[in-house]
Amino acid sequence: MSLEKSPRHEIAHLGHVELFTSEPERSLDFFVRVLGLTENGSHGDSVFLRTWDDYEHHSLKLTAAKTSGVGRTALRASSEEALKRRVAAVEERGMGIGWVDGDPGIGPTYLFRDPDGHEMEIYWETERYQPPEHLRPALKNQAQAYPGRGVSVRRLDHVNYLAKDAATNGGFVCEALGGRVTEQIQLDTGVISGQWTNFAQKSYDLVYTNDWTGSTGRLHHIAFATDTREDILRAADIALDNGVFIETGPHKHAIQQTFFLYVYEPGGNRIELCNPTARLIFAPDWEPVTWTEAERAKGQAWGLKTIASFHTHGTPPVDTPAQ
Amino acid sequence: MSLEKSPRHEIAHLGHVELFTSEPERSLDFFVRVLGLTENGSHGDSVFLRTWDDYEHHSLKLTAAKTSGVGRTALRASSEEALKRRVAAVEERGMGIGWVDGDPGIGPTYLFRDPDGHEMEIYWETERYQPPEHLRPALKNQAQAYPGRGVSVRRLDHVNYLAKDAATNGGFVCEALGGRVTEQIQLDTGVISGQWTNFAQKSYDLVYTNDWTGSTGRLHHIAFATDTREDILRAADIALDNGVFIETGPHKHAIQQTFFLYVYEPGGNRIELCNPTARLIFAPDWEPVTWTEAERAKGQAWGLKTIASFHTHGTPPVDTPAQ
Amino acid sequence: MSLEKSPRHEIAHLGHVELFTSEPERSLDFFVRVLGLTENGSHGDSVFLRTWDDYEHHSLKLTAAKTSGVGRTALRASSEEALKRRVAAVEERGMGIGWVDGDPGIGPTYLFRDPDGHEMEIYWETERYQPPEHLRPALKNQAQAYPGRGVSVRRLDHVNYLAKDAATNGGFVCEALGGRVTEQIQLDTGVISGQWTNFAQKSYDLVYTNDWTGSTGRLHHIAFATDTREDILRAADIALDNGVFIETGPHKHAIQQTFFLYVYEPGGNRIELCNPTARLIFAPDWEPVTWTEAERAKGQAWGLKTIASFHTHGTPPVDTPAQ
Amino acid sequence: MSLEKSPRHEIAHLGHVELFTSEPERSLDFFVRVLGLTENGSHGDSVFLRTWDDYEHHSLKLTAAKTSGVGRTALRASSEEALKRRVAAVEERGMGIGWVDGDPGIGPTYLFRDPDGHEMEIYWETERYQPPEHLRPALKNQAQAYPGRGVSVRRLDHVNYLAKDAATNGGFVCEALGGRVTEQIQLDTGVISGQWTNFAQKSYDLVYTNDWTGSTGRLHHIAFATDTREDILRAADIALDNGVFIETGPHKHAIQQTFFLYVYEPGGNRIELCNPTARLIFAPDWEPVTWTEAERAKGQAWGLKTIASFHTHGTPPVDTPAQ
Repeated sequence: MSLEKSPRHEIAHLGHVELFTSEPERSLDFFVRVLGLTENGSHGDSVFLRTWDDYEHHSLKLTAAKTSGVGRTALRASSEEALKRRVAAVEERGMGIGWVDGDPGIGPTYLFRDPDGHEMEIYWETERYQPPEHLRPALKNQAQAYPGRGVSVRRLDHVNYLAKDAATNGGFVCEALGGRVTEQIQLDTGVISGQWTNFAQKSYDLVYTNDWTGSTGRLHHIAFATDTREDILRAADIALDNGVFIETGPHKHAIQQTFFLYVYEPGGNRIELCNPTARLIFAPDWEPVTWTEAERAKGQAWGLKTIASFHTHGTPPVDTPAQ
Repeated sequence: MSLEKSPRHEIAHLGHVELFTSEPERSLDFFVRVLGLTENGSHGDSVFLRTWDDYEHHSLKLTAAKTSGVGRTALRASSEEALKRRVAAVEERGMGIGWVDGDPGIGPTYLFRDPDGHEMEIYWETERYQPPEHLRPALKNQAQAYPGRGVSVRRLDHVNYLAKDAATNGGFVCEALGGRVTEQIQLDTGVISGQWTNFAQKSYDLVYTNDWTGSTGRLHHIAFATDTREDILRAADIALDNGVFIETGPHKHAIQQTFFLYVYEPGGNRIELCNPTARLIFAPDWEPVTWTEAERAKGQAWGLKTIASFHTHGTPPVDTPAQ
Repeated sequence: MSLEKSPRHEIAHLGHVELFTSEPERSLDFFVRVLGLTENGSHGDSVFLRTWDDYEHHSLKLTAAKTSGVGRTALRASSEEALKRRVAAVEERGMGIGWVDGDPGIGPTYLFRDPDGHEMEIYWETERYQPPEHLRPALKNQAQAYPGRGVSVRRLDHVNYLAKDAATNGGFVCEALGGRVTEQIQLDTGVISGQWTNFAQKSYDLVYTNDWTGSTGRLHHIAFATDTREDILRAADIALDNGVFIETGPHKHAIQQTFFLYVYEPGGNRIELCNPTARLIFAPDWEPVTWTEAERAKGQAWGLKTIASFHTHGTPPVDTPAQ
Repeated sequence: MSLEKSPRHEIAHLGHVELFTSEPERSLDFFVRVLGLTENGSHGDSVFLRTWDDYEHHSLKLTAAKTSGVGRTALRASSEEALKRRVAAVEERGMGIGWVDGDPGIGPTYLFRDPDGHEMEIYWETERYQPPEHLRPALKNQAQAYPGRGVSVRRLDHVNYLAKDAATNGGFVCEALGGRVTEQIQLDTGVISGQWTNFAQKSYDLVYTNDWTGSTGRLHHIAFATDTREDILRAADIALDNGVFIETGPHKHAIQQTFFLYVYEPGGNRIELCNPTARLIFAPDWEPVTWTEAERAKGQAWGLKTIASFHTHGTPPVDTPAQ
């Protein structure tokens, strides 16, 4: 069977992501009061939450569960035809599960898994969010009024998965979904230990980094974008005074040059607050930037050493394998 | 009677200010939810409110009244002896009223008026604010936890009065209270139409500008300082989506170079949100900077024309005199 | 002849733009010293200049001329096939001129005109910029070292043309080049007086606004993006102390919500310094946001009135028609 | 002999500081091109440099020498009488050296040493800086045009000395010069290992931290204030692309809450770039904030661990004593 490489721009953007938490009340408080998301309904064990400038029904599906980790990641196709093509490409690779009832606000949804087992779904039809009166924005080119509550993140930005083999999964995103690797890490052994993939001009949307435990299907972090770097600095103060654990930052990544702050939400999942400044990837023939071990050893952009827990904390937690 | 000019540093800082509003509920909502102040008790028709880094009981006393305008401005003396000397200096000038019961958290308080009739009070003893558990800051050198609600202003910054004669009142602040004029406006007629006075390194604390209506005792605005200019930009978005009237800004004043945003609170009083960047006045022999009409005609620092309502809106409102 | 609408993503991005100036020395000083661009060669009457994160040979071609205005705008196609398709689509509409020798660093280049007569060119092959030693960036995912000189703009962001009929030209960009209208202004008469078009996630790349003089081929402004809003505020100070004329701003546009500052370069061309914060357009089925006259009358986002010269200053200057 | 404690506000501010370097050319380039200071004359082995908003002749005296370290720190008295009183107080404590010819722009200057042996001088008369035409600011309340070159620091902010015994020296600043301790570190042994002292509302001006080597007269760092936190972030990029060693930061200090970046200038001296946001000390009876070892173990405000070299790098270098 010959698998043709997918054309670009078949996936428009990351739609929403599901997060599991065994501390649903505290996690909800974190996302609503500390990050400034807005509730937009609930269903069963899940609460739907949205950032103020995501245009769909929700950005985050927070689901009470026995443990932490990531549930389904939803991707919006660029058109109905693109949806069909992507379903075919996924099925061709044997990763498909089938059509399912989508979340509220979402039309026909096709469920599948990436090679590492993370659940993903793809859809085309979507309802544009209609804010209630008290959340109506003053400017009509904005999805919802600016909340002015806590960090007030602008959008869901990206998902960073842990995977047994980053390159296999990054390859799947490129080949089946039309993504492209914009940056990656290559160890001295030749192993690709991390891949950042994007779907259009935003510099990355889905990221895979190797899971040191050899487990599958786990999460490194999900990220929300703020409007400014100052929002990240302010977020650090908000985290500090709300007893939110700050893992590392604020600082600037060398990879992708994102300004970042990493915190843990009460359910234990790592959350990145990120700001790209004005950086975008324009070159249609962008060559992946490959970072070596020696380059990574220099730490982040301004010299901050990569924190050790970046290599040991993922969700859900697993027993660390004997060395 | 020979009135000796006061030494410097007799007044430590602006303590708090009282604001009148005929819309007490809406004004309270504005200060708490939009600006991010914290309630700290109430008494009669007044609610006490504080910013997160003012160290005393309250920064603002919001009093329900028939109309808008400014009530008493409270100044903290630099020492008990300074308090006595200032009371003597005020009495010497015939502006004293007498000792009164101070607001909560404040010790013996001496009430007086400036030449234009604005009520002022001066005190030395004060209780340092002890935050309740849920408002305790993570860093012990901070008065209260950062609220992360609305604009989250840092401190009460200054009061800008309207006066029949700015220079007489600025002179009183200098001579009786030890203030100093850091900047002023001089019309082509020779009339001083505005004076900015300070008590220490902060570039201004009390400001007088001429009241075009010839009225006395009125208010141009009170100002709250934010930590950053970005906070001012964010404040503009918050005002926009909360239906708060933005009069002018954000922009940078030529005078004092303050980055500003002017809004009206629901009671009609003008509120400035301001940020000085890192500007301070260090020279002990600083000569007042005098701006001419021609210079003022250039507008604010980056060219924004001074808005007409700056010369016509004051509180409480008065019938404009026939021209 | 049936003209098929173009697919999306055929144009990758704005490559560079040519600007005419009758003050070549002073204009060059403005772009190099005040805006922080870097010279990268010259040819005849033209100097090539680049921003620190544009990846190609140059972002701006500054050409000495008898008067001001815009020369050719260069667009990079998304692939060689996309280039061929766009050339065919342009020729089909009778707007083509032909293949020409491109600027340094650019391969085969096809020259054409938009309906208003502005020269445009499209190309696929390009040389990736290789910085000399002293301009080599510390981070390998960046095109050139950060100059730290003047405003230090990050990239050429967009071109805003004046046109006899904005909608005809916006339509051409959409139909022949695969652009899409993200926002527009519709007068009470029904006339579309401005259209903002984009090629991917960046919210706009080419803009047309109606030329009140009825002239053709003129320029409203070209824009450079900064990394942060603070860079725009700093730029205002830099403009102020360098005697650069500030036309309006800093403020936030209602349309597209861009944070802006408008200045005139010494040749008379209007230059925008802009920052989008983190705003991007993600919806593949984004419906154009249409602003009415009544909405535009409210001014910019935070209430600044649109400056009158926005409707009267274009380059090159023309005699204003009698009313 | 009874030593009376000095009144407050006798010292107006830090005037300038002298820095030694064995790499005079490279250090000069660092201060001019990277930090954005302006040369203002030279004398012998010294070059005088000034920030754009310090109002006197120079902020920094850069002196070619065999090694690194700090020379004289110059303090401006609040008045001629204050100068006399401080000279008397210093002499009373046996720390005086005598009247010397001051630096250019400075009148009669009294030289003395702090208990640790750092040279200091105090003066009253000073010439206000008169910028040449090309450095004239657009706004008359500013000392010099904004340079727009490199970091473009606003002012010399503070000096942090290493001393055999921080408390003895901090005590000297308070008792002889009228300073006040705003914050300090107390080890579990009871030893005060660091004291931050100020002269007015600025939260600190002179700082002493214990020298682990037991040496005397050394420097921990001198600091320049930027206008904004964004300037600090931008400074990190400028340092990165200019090959300037970044020791730690950007981050926010827990002590004094200053936003910081530490770099080494080519002569080896540690330079802090700092921004206080809007923080000032207003309480005239401010009680020193004392940090314990346990509190310091939490690291900086947002959790960054204090870098080890903070406790081992000082200038001039000395042989580390055997443990």
